[in-house]
Formats: sequence, C-alpha cells, structure tokens
Amino acid sequence: MSNNNNDNLIIEKLFKPKSIAVVGASRNLEKIGGVILSNLVKNKFNGKIYAVNPSAKEILGVPSYPSLLDIPDEVEHIVVAIPAEKVPEIIEEAGKKGVKVATIIASGFKEVGRADLEEKVVNIAKKYGIRILGPNVFGVVYTPMNLNATFGAEHIHKGKIAFLTQSGALGIALMHWTSMEKIGLSSIVSMGNMTDIDAIDLAKFFEKDENTKVIGLYLEGLGTGKGHEFIEVFSEITKKKPVIALKAGRSERGTRAVASHTGSLAGSDAVYDSALKQAGVLRASDVEQLFNWAKMMAFSESFEINGKGFVIITNGGGMGVMATDASEFNGLPLLEVPEELKKEFRKTMPWFGSPNNPVDLTGQSNVQNYIEAIKVALESELVSGITVMYGEVAFLDPVELANGIAKTLKEYNKSRKPVNVVMLGGEKTKMGTEILEENGVPVYPIPEKAISSMAALYKYSKIIGKANLKI
Amino acid sequence: MSNNNNDNLIIEKLFKPKSIAVVGASRNLEKIGGVILSNLVKNKFNGKIYAVNPSAKEILGVPSYPSLLDIPDEVEHIVVAIPAEKVPEIIEEAGKKGVKVATIIASGFKEVGRADLEEKVVNIAKKYGIRILGPNVFGVVYTPMNLNATFGAEHIHKGKIAFLTQSGALGIALMHWTSMEKIGLSSIVSMGNMTDIDAIDLAKFFEKDENTKVIGLYLEGLGTGKGHEFIEVFSEITKKKPVIALKAGRSERGTRAVASHTGSLAGSDAVYDSALKQAGVLRASDVEQLFNWAKMMAFSESFEINGKGFVIITNGGGMGVMATDASEFNGLPLLEVPEELKKEFRKTMPWFGSPNNPVDLTGQSNVQNYIEAIKVALESELVSGITVMYGEVAFLDPVELANGIAKTLKEYNKSRKPVNVVMLGGEKTKMGTEILEENGVPVYPIPEKAISSMAALYKYSKIIGKANLKI
Repeated sequence: MSNNNNDNLIIEKLFKPKSIAVVGASRNLEKIGGVILSNLVKNKFNGKIYAVNPSAKEILGVPSYPSLLDIPDEVEHIVVAIPAEKVPEIIEEAGKKGVKVATIIASGFKEVGRADLEEKVVNIAKKYGIRILGPNVFGVVYTPMNLNATFGAEHIHKGKIAFLTQSGALGIALMHWTSMEKIGLSSIVSMGNMTDIDAIDLAKFFEKDENTKVIGLYLEGLGTGKGHEFIEVFSEITKKKPVIALKAGRSERGTRAVASHTGSLAGSDAVYDSALKQAGVLRASDVEQLFNWAKMMAFSESFEINGKGFVIITNGGGMGVMATDASEFNGLPLLEVPEELKKEFRKTMPWFGSPNNPVDLTGQSNVQNYIEAIKVALESELVSGITVMYGEVAFLDPVELANGIAKTLKEYNKSRKPVNVVMLGGEKTKMGTEILEENGVPVYPIPEKAISSMAALYKYSKIIGKANLKI
Repeated sequence: MSNNNNDNLIIEKLFKPKSIAVVGASRNLEKIGGVILSNLVKNKFNGKIYAVNPSAKEILGVPSYPSLLDIPDEVEHIVVAIPAEKVPEIIEEAGKKGVKVATIIASGFKEVGRADLEEKVVNIAKKYGIRILGPNVFGVVYTPMNLNATFGAEHIHKGKIAFLTQSGALGIALMHWTSMEKIGLSSIVSMGNMTDIDAIDLAKFFEKDENTKVIGLYLEGLGTGKGHEFIEVFSEITKKKPVIALKAGRSERGTRAVASHTGSLAGSDAVYDSALKQAGVLRASDVEQLFNWAKMMAFSESFEINGKGFVIITNGGGMGVMATDASEFNGLPLLEVPEELKKEFRKTMPWFGSPNNPVDLTGQSNVQNYIEAIKVALESELVSGITVMYGEVAFLDPVELANGIAKTLKEYNKSRKPVNVVMLGGEKTKMGTEILEENGVPVYPIPEKAISSMAALYKYSKIIGKANLKI
C-alpha cells in the first residue's frame, strides 16, 4: 500500500517479530485461537509468544494475560482471533501497546457487507501506525523463523517457495497438501480482504527475502486502481525472482463467481493477462502447475540458459514421444543432436538404443547407462538443459538410479544447467523421487509436467534476458 | 486382424486360457522368464501353469518340462520368453502341440530391422492357426482370472479399466503407478509390434467383456491401411463402452520421434484426430488425464444425463472459481440455480454461504451441511450431475466427511446422477479419498481434474445420444 522504508520495516515484523501475542488464545483446540497458539508453540517459534485470554494465567506453557496492555514486554505482532465486533477495541489497545502489525483472523467485515466495521478498524490502525493483514485470513507462516501463526496445518515442509493466497480455504488445503507432497515453503500468507497489506506489500518483502527463491500468488482481484502499481512493482521483483500467478476468474462465469466470492471487481481476464505479462509474471493454469513450476525454480541454481537446445534422456520410447510433443506445445526448443554428439550418446546405451533426441537408453538400460548419458549431456556446450525420464522396470532399481543421478549432477553439473527428472512408477519409484528431491533435483510423475516446468524456467530466463540460445 | 468368430474365441484364450505355459521359465528373478512365472504364481492364476525349461523338473512349485511337447496336458496360451532367434522353432512346436495363442515377449524383430524373422514367425503361426500377441511385449494381465503373465509389477489393483499400450516401458511403469494409486484395472495388454493381434482385435474382446467398463488406449500408430477398419470397429465399440485414447506424436517433432521409436508411419495428427472423433473415441492429452477420465467412467453407473446443468458444491470460494473456470473451458454447462432451488440450498449452509452455483458452504461448514446440500442436488430434477469439493480445514474431518458423502450417495442417488469429488489436502484427506473410492466415488486432487473428468463423461453421453440436457 505504501512505499516508504519505514512501512517495509514494519511489514518485516509480520514475518520476523521479536514477540507475538495471540489475542483470543485458548486451550480448546476446537477454537481458532487454540489452534493458532498450538501451531506457534509446536513449531517452536524463534521468538517470544504471549497469550491474551480473560481468565488463564498460562496456556500450553505460554504466559497468558487478561489484556494486551498487561503483557510486561514489547509486542510487535498480534494475531487477533476474536469476533469481528470486538476487533476495533483490540486494535485501540494494540495502538496503546505500540504493536507494529496485526493479523486479523476474524471474518464478518467487508466480505459480508460490513465495510463500515472494516473502515473503523483501519482508521484506528492508521491513527497508531499499525499495519494490518486481513481481516478474514487464516494467518501467516514464515518457516525460517519457525513461525506458524495460522489455524491451518501444523506441519510445514521447509523450502524456498513463498505462497500468497487471496483464498483462505484454498491456502489451508494447500498447507496440508504441500506438507504431504514435501513441497518446500519459506512462507504462506493469507491475504483475505487486503484492507491494508496487499499482494504488492508482501511481494516487496519477499523480493528482498534471502530465504525465498520464488513467489507464488493466488489472486482473484487486485483492488480497484491497483493495476498500474502492480505492474510497476512486479516488473522490478520479477527481475530478481520468478513470480508465478494463478489468477482465477478466467472465464466469463468464473469472473462472476469471483465477484460473488470476494466482492472484488474482477475485471476482464484479458486485462489481467496483459498486466501479468507486462510485469513478467508467469501465469499457471491450476495450483498443481503453479507448484510444479515453483519447485523447478526453487531447485534451480541459475536462470542462465546457454547452448542450442534441451535434451531428453529416457528409458522408454513412448515417454520420449510424449515429452517431445510437450516440448513443442510448451515452446521448449529441443536440440538437434549433431553427429559427433550422437557418437558420444551411442557409447552410453545398448546397441538398439537411439542417440537422437529423445536419447533412448531403452528399457534394458542400467544405472551406468543413465550416468554416462547424463555426463555426456552435461559436458556438451550444445545442451541447454536436461530432462531425465525413468519409467519403472523390473531390472533397474529406481532407488539406485536416483542415487546415481543425484551424485552425477552434484559432481558434474559445473555449468549449472537446469535438470529435472520424470519418475513414473509405483512405491519404489516414489522412494527414488524422494531421494532426488532431498538432493535438490525436481521430480515430476509424467513427462508433460516436467517439460512444462522446464519450459516455464526457460520462459523466465527469457523474461530476464538470460537465455542465450543459439538456435 | 480378422473378423470371424473363431478368431474371437481364440483371442479369448489370451485372457482366459485353461492352461498357460511359460517357455523360458526360470527360477532366476533377474531373468524375464523368471519374473513372468513368479507373477503368474503369486497372483494365483485361475488355471493351470506349466514351465518349459531344459533342465528343471519344477520351478516355484510349477511342473517344468524340457519342451512344450513334453507337457502331458493341453496348453492354450504360451508366453515365449526366449531370444528372438529361437522363437520360430518354439512356434513350430506350439503348432504341433495345438496351442491357440502365443505371447512373444522377445524383442529383436521388426523394430530393429529384422522384419524377416518376424515374418518367419508369422508364417509358422498362420500355418497352425496360432494367434500372436507381440513380439516385443511385456505380456498380458487379466485380473478377473488373476492372470498376470508379464514381467511388470506383481501387484495389480483390480477394477473395470482395460488398458492397451503400444509402448512397453510406459505400460510397465503404469502397472506400478496404477497399483500405487489404486486405480482399478481389468486388464493391461502390451501390444508391441502388433504383427498379428492388434488394438482392433483386443478392443473387440473388451467390447463384450463384462468385467470391463472402459477401454484406455495408448497408441503411436495403427499400421498402414488400418484407419478405415479402426473407425468402423471402434464406432461400434464406443456405442457400448467409452474408449479413451492417448495418441502420441501429436506435434511435428513428436511424429518423427514415433517413426524412430516404433517404425510406424505415424501420419499427420489431424488424420488421427479426425479418425478418433469419427469413431467416438475420447482423446486425452496425457496418461494422467486418460486415467482420470477412465476412473470417472468406470465408477459411473449410468451415462444418461438429464436436467439443466451441473452443480458444484464447495467449502471454498477460491476452489469454486477454479471449478467454474474449468467448466467453461471444458464445455460443461453449469446450472443457473432458480430462486426456489436457491432457497433449498440456503437451508443447508451457514448464513454467509452462497446458494448460487458454485454452492459455497463456506470454510465453516460441517458434514451435515455437505450431506444436506448433496441431498438437495440429488433430489432436484434440474441437476445433471454434481462435483463436491472439499479443501482440508481444521474443523471438518475429511474421513467423517468421506463417510458421510459415501453414505448419502448410496441412499439418495436413485437417479444415478454422475457425481465426483475433489479432496484437496494432506494425509487425512488422502484417507478420506480412499474411503470414497472404495465406495465407488471417483475423487480428484484439484478442481480442474474433477471438472475435466465430468466433462469427459458428459461428452461421452452426447456421443452415444444419452445426454438430454434442457439448456
């Protein structure tokens, strides 16, 4: 909302407060204030935690006070988990206490026609210089500080993706989903009504945050008159970090659904599409794709792309064809392998394999074939990036293969080429997938998703002018 | 390849032989003949099993003989797991033995330039009236008979989907994947070089097979001059059962990759696309989508669709918008909910919910809200089908919800409306997913996949003239 440095410092307190207080804390885990406090405590937040509750002296080991003003310490960030009607009073108290930022969980404001109540809260906050996240949010997560001030999932898988969401239910569901899928997050922020802190403010924080490599955004609308600022700010951010947006309300009827959901004037999708493009923001078509792309970006060490085209290495011709189709549809240029390089690839495979691109090691290949073929691709200046594909077969153990690929990439990927892997199979293959991802190699279950993610990285490389392909 | 009834009876022996012999059986599980025998034994094939091995008297409890001719019993189906050069000799023996059908596992034929050897095998087989699957295949699975005559995954999840694949490596990987994902198969067949038995022959079997509700097809090419027959045969099959094809080689470069992989003259994709459309075959864009759609078809009790449009029930506005977008993009007509029905929906939700379509029960809904809303949708004649969506939240247990939805559908879905469910969340949600699928309700992880699958069902209903929507 505002550009000055002081405000940026204050927003930092949302993620890195020295102390946080849960107003409406409870020992009842069926209450929102109970879950938030429990998530803070169980995640071992790297700061002080206080509870505000009219009657308790201590909840879950956390000291509890009847009011904010009773806390015998500075409080930088409060999470307000009480009914909407009582929020203005608490913000008044927070002002007196010198609180910097308030996350207002309660719904019952603008989204249900109570713009008056929301305005009242905003005016009090302004008077004291308090920044507000919300209202109508599930809270905020910032894993580098072990901060989980949400009533969402308790466990978060740590990583480099920051995800900002305008839909609360979606965000909570995705907290659970990313944890299960072991997709690593630096942060997840519920933006709710965006009465003060909005996507622009938050993205500015993540632009500088060294714990975040890629920003994901679920948007339904920007707020009236925000388009120009969005383009301006995000154009700068995307020069430093990839931003991937899922803008819902793309269809005519979807636009109407947005209006009924958030009350945002959704505006025509063409306008958003053009704004996102101008700002250098990549646009995903569903949440799974958003996280597929984000994983690729988060695991990549460089966005500089050289050479003359991408190479696919596979143990199955069918998967090779699928990847080839996907490359063309996603605008990923495949290398035309010259004779000399073909000779090199041929040495890595059974005699009936194919050194063309896709490089087909055949279903009878072994770990050594993969390692050798990957080395050839890594060492050739012609190769821009590599997608390695494995379809589970009886005679090639996916766990051994995963270890082999991870080791080879660590030792030989000196030029930091983008590499991703397809692992299509069952339980054993899933174990291989986990080994690769623990080693920083992004893995996808089918060729199309790997290629789409590689193409997204290539697209981002072009956006920031780091793609130097000689095609 | 041939149309007469006798041939159809013989192809039945591929799936339902009274006895099967593995030629090249071994106790060494690092050999193909070892894995095939082991898979047959461990799956407890409902028929007799014999091994052919020069030295053993018994392998894995199965009686073993030096030659086919030594087996003191009729043998209907042989699986030939010996090197290509020795195959003609075995087929000659099989002819003398009166074998009906031979699955030839070995590669080393047409696909590597040895069309001469393949022709030799075909000629011997013709002489004796033996039908051939392959060569260059991983085998055949038919779960109603507990037949797993492959060197692929040992465990198969039983169900109603038959999957025919021209790519071996892909097929084996998908055996593992479908088992892990609990996608139920009646059969999986590796088609390899299709020197005799081809997709058309196999599909004719599944057309009549009462254990199969939907046929999935991974195709790279049909074989020269087969287009007309394909359209003719599949036009009949699709009147009875949905067929979903993934035709790879869609792009210009993909077409070239097919040629190098199978040696098929791939032909232009437009030609295939038109043939598939004429034949009433649905075309998926990747294997995951193929199985998503197939699952929807396999679980549906009826393909008749009435009413005035589909309804989405959700606990999150964001997911509702995504589903709305997907409906428009996939041609799935959503119901404009009339005032009277809105009143009914309103009774099922908190006051701040929305009775429009998507019907938004809000993040504060409980199991009872879902049950009541689903009942309203099931009981309204206006509703053509229902997508129920759940994003994991702290205060609504997905397992309880899954049980509630399953029970409600069992009791109240008298008109057999198509219903599917989105379950987006973590481990607990996954448990809910499994409960629903065990109860015959297809579940998807994100809105777009559920809507795409519902739209595929609607499209099939239109193809067979059973969609009576009054829009």
